[in-house]
Amino acid sequence: MADEEAVPLTGIILAGGSGTRFWPLSRSQYPKQVLRLLGSESMIQSTIERLLPRIPPNRLAVVTNASQAQLIHQELSRKGWHEIRIWIEPQGRNTAAAAGLAAVLLDNEPEDHLMAVFPADHFIRERDRLIQALELGAVWARAGYLVTFGIPPARPETGYGYIRQGAPLDAAGRVFRAARFIEKPPLDQAREFLKAGGYFWNSGIFIFRRDALLTALSRYQPELYRGLARLLDRENRPPLDEVYENLPSISLDHGILEKADNVAVVPVEMGWNDVGTWEALHNIFPRDDRGNVLWGRTLDRDSRECLVYAQDRLVATIGLERTIVVDTPDATLVCHRDRVQDVKDLVAELQRQNMVESVQHLTVERPWGRYTVMDEGPGFKVKRIVVDPGMKLSLQLHRHRAEHWVVVSGTARVTIGRNVRLVAGNQSVYIPLETVHRLENPETEPLKIIEVQTGASLEEDDIIRLDDDYWRPEDK
Amino acid sequence: MADEEAVPLTGIILAGGSGTRFWPLSRSQYPKQVLRLLGSESMIQSTIERLLPRIPPNRLAVVTNASQAQLIHQELSRKGWHEIRIWIEPQGRNTAAAAGLAAVLLDNEPEDHLMAVFPADHFIRERDRLIQALELGAVWARAGYLVTFGIPPARPETGYGYIRQGAPLDAAGRVFRAARFIEKPPLDQAREFLKAGGYFWNSGIFIFRRDALLTALSRYQPELYRGLARLLDRENRPPLDEVYENLPSISLDHGILEKADNVAVVPVEMGWNDVGTWEALHNIFPRDDRGNVLWGRTLDRDSRECLVYAQDRLVATIGLERTIVVDTPDATLVCHRDRVQDVKDLVAELQRQNMVESVQHLTVERPWGRYTVMDEGPGFKVKRIVVDPGMKLSLQLHRHRAEHWVVVSGTARVTIGRNVRLVAGNQSVYIPLETVHRLENPETEPLKIIEVQTGASLEEDDIIRLDDDYWRPEDK
Repeated sequence: MADEEAVPLTGIILAGGSGTRFWPLSRSQYPKQVLRLLGSESMIQSTIERLLPRIPPNRLAVVTNASQAQLIHQELSRKGWHEIRIWIEPQGRNTAAAAGLAAVLLDNEPEDHLMAVFPADHFIRERDRLIQALELGAVWARAGYLVTFGIPPARPETGYGYIRQGAPLDAAGRVFRAARFIEKPPLDQAREFLKAGGYFWNSGIFIFRRDALLTALSRYQPELYRGLARLLDRENRPPLDEVYENLPSISLDHGILEKADNVAVVPVEMGWNDVGTWEALHNIFPRDDRGNVLWGRTLDRDSRECLVYAQDRLVATIGLERTIVVDTPDATLVCHRDRVQDVKDLVAELQRQNMVESVQHLTVERPWGRYTVMDEGPGFKVKRIVVDPGMKLSLQLHRHRAEHWVVVSGTARVTIGRNVRLVAGNQSVYIPLETVHRLENPETEPLKIIEVQTGASLEEDDIIRLDDDYWRPEDK
Repeated sequence: MADEEAVPLTGIILAGGSGTRFWPLSRSQYPKQVLRLLGSESMIQSTIERLLPRIPPNRLAVVTNASQAQLIHQELSRKGWHEIRIWIEPQGRNTAAAAGLAAVLLDNEPEDHLMAVFPADHFIRERDRLIQALELGAVWARAGYLVTFGIPPARPETGYGYIRQGAPLDAAGRVFRAARFIEKPPLDQAREFLKAGGYFWNSGIFIFRRDALLTALSRYQPELYRGLARLLDRENRPPLDEVYENLPSISLDHGILEKADNVAVVPVEMGWNDVGTWEALHNIFPRDDRGNVLWGRTLDRDSRECLVYAQDRLVATIGLERTIVVDTPDATLVCHRDRVQDVKDLVAELQRQNMVESVQHLTVERPWGRYTVMDEGPGFKVKRIVVDPGMKLSLQLHRHRAEHWVVVSGTARVTIGRNVRLVAGNQSVYIPLETVHRLENPETEPLKIIEVQTGASLEEDDIIRLDDDYWRPEDK
């Protein structure tokens, strides 16, 4: 499909969600799209991977927000996708604003340039079917339609929005007008839809011409359009913060597609799942003969229809029914499967109580690698620090703490004051208070050190940066 | 009660159980009797504490086995109970042998000396009632009876043995002959007992004269008696291993009390619970208005009749019914309350699979303090080591590993080769391979250090001891 003849197409990945419903695996600083829920790739990596046969990296852009940009950047870098653009919204304003922003920022492209919009965090088993459907959708998008993709429902799901098909647009009955959009229905209505036929799950994937979107925005969301249109004035482009401050927050579905009369739906069966809650994983993964999905170091006796996710400790279960157990290094969730939607409220409560477990993991990702707090007590803190090959931390000093570093694997280049030296495995160095220092990994293997901090204050903000490689507000 | 006039009485605490049903809090090397399940004292400490008003420390003995002796010793030392004797059985042979051993080892006492036997790991809310009942029991024990203590049943419990009362022995109806012993009954039978009256739970507490026990043993367990009686020959006392090798393994109840005709039962209501399973804790602890016992850092939404025990991490629960969640640093158990008996089988399975989580905790108790493995990987291991005031580790060396020590709290006296020096907080020392070294805490506060080991082999058995303060087979 990725041949020379294919119509040029820009893929817009919407990656602004927080995914609180995957707590404790997701945290506000570690959202669903960077989780490796389904294998070795993160959700956003899989999303991009499946588009590459049709859309090359230089035709892809990710729309995200400031707090997630660093993580997204890392996920793309790890795959060598340096050409994919990252567009940072100053604040989340839902999907109509995100898609509108993309349409505006694509102003080097012709007016009838095609844009396809994809959520960053869904699962699609059959990539070829997606590409085929996109190709068909592109034909109707070029004709001026706002094209959606509908999934034939497999069950009376109450967690998805639905699209009702209208009159067929082609003789083969592969494309229809969209007659109606229905928000998450109650169970009896979902059952009716399934029985009646002609209803599809709304996949959240769209394709349209740039001008078709902008026209629809100006007609149905004039305030949103006026705000974003200010960015089209290249001479007097206002700061994005200023534009976003007053933008209405509404979804593409609600704000545009429900109102427009040129909406088409392409039905496509492709093993799609929005992976919205822990419940979805129980549906996606193979189950044992008692209906359990057991993951990691688990031991079960007689449980049924459960999902047990053990990240790195042992989780033993006995006689549970329809229960979800998710274990991470600092927090464990045990939740009945009928209550997975409540995880969101639980996280809100954790946030109200200022519990750090709602914000980040024990292991914190940094542009240069990651660190894990292993122990802390009055006057000391112990961290494991991994510096990725070729990376370095900022040149820094601390007012209140001294640090001992023991290299356990790899070789470090350490700056202390005016001295620079190599520190190999099984060697250690000491960094006194108020001493300028820097840690680097000059090798091609990861550098692992154990850091013991001692001092009166061990807050992360006791850090004065003198030189830094990274465009980011915070560091180790 | 502990006045000069009281009849001399030796208290025998039976502390040989493994308590696998309290996994993951109990481990084979960390049994139920040393757990702090009910507050700041371990089960064995509480057991002894409640006897002290009647029995002084020099009249108490704990019967245990070699693998638990060190822990028991530590529990007693922490309370300053240095006079309490510890008798170590070479292997567990059930309660008849343990009580019989005590009767034999008390051969400095007169034949009619009174012995009271107590399980080390039960809960009794009303200590005064226990002491009163003991006093009454002592009267009948002196008269030659084997006296048991029966708990008036509060519910049709199927997890306890029952004693049926026979004819009253006194006019006041406070003591009865024991007519029958019944093993854990099925539910319908337990209901009948409750309805009929005259049945008591068997508390596992007994009082009898030394000679009454030995006579009963010789009559009803002649093989057991012949074995133990060899120890009475002070001139030719055989090694305990040899005696125990062929001793029959049977309980006092089964082996003696069911068969003897001089058994009495003293009913006593004293808030007794055998704390046999996690279920017992749900009964003992105060519950919230949805019937939950929540312990530690927990957050719950809408669960009912649950027990959640969070040792030091966050445990969140949603919509659970009658579920037990126990979280420890290296293992989590989630178990339906109707299945608490199965925890035992689960632990057996862990043992079959050689999982370390069945054997010990991440934090391992040692005679000199404790250590916790915080991290390990190829070529390195990180431990937190706490040395109690005045204690020292053995003088040792390692063939395959070097060690870095960073003192984070307290002051260490460190021997390296021929040098001895003090290392204060925020200082570190390095111990190369093959170098004789020793760690001591010369201060009155605990010493805490972080140890980073590096080397080709980091097994605990890479240790050559040159001098050691402790009577124990293994060390850090």
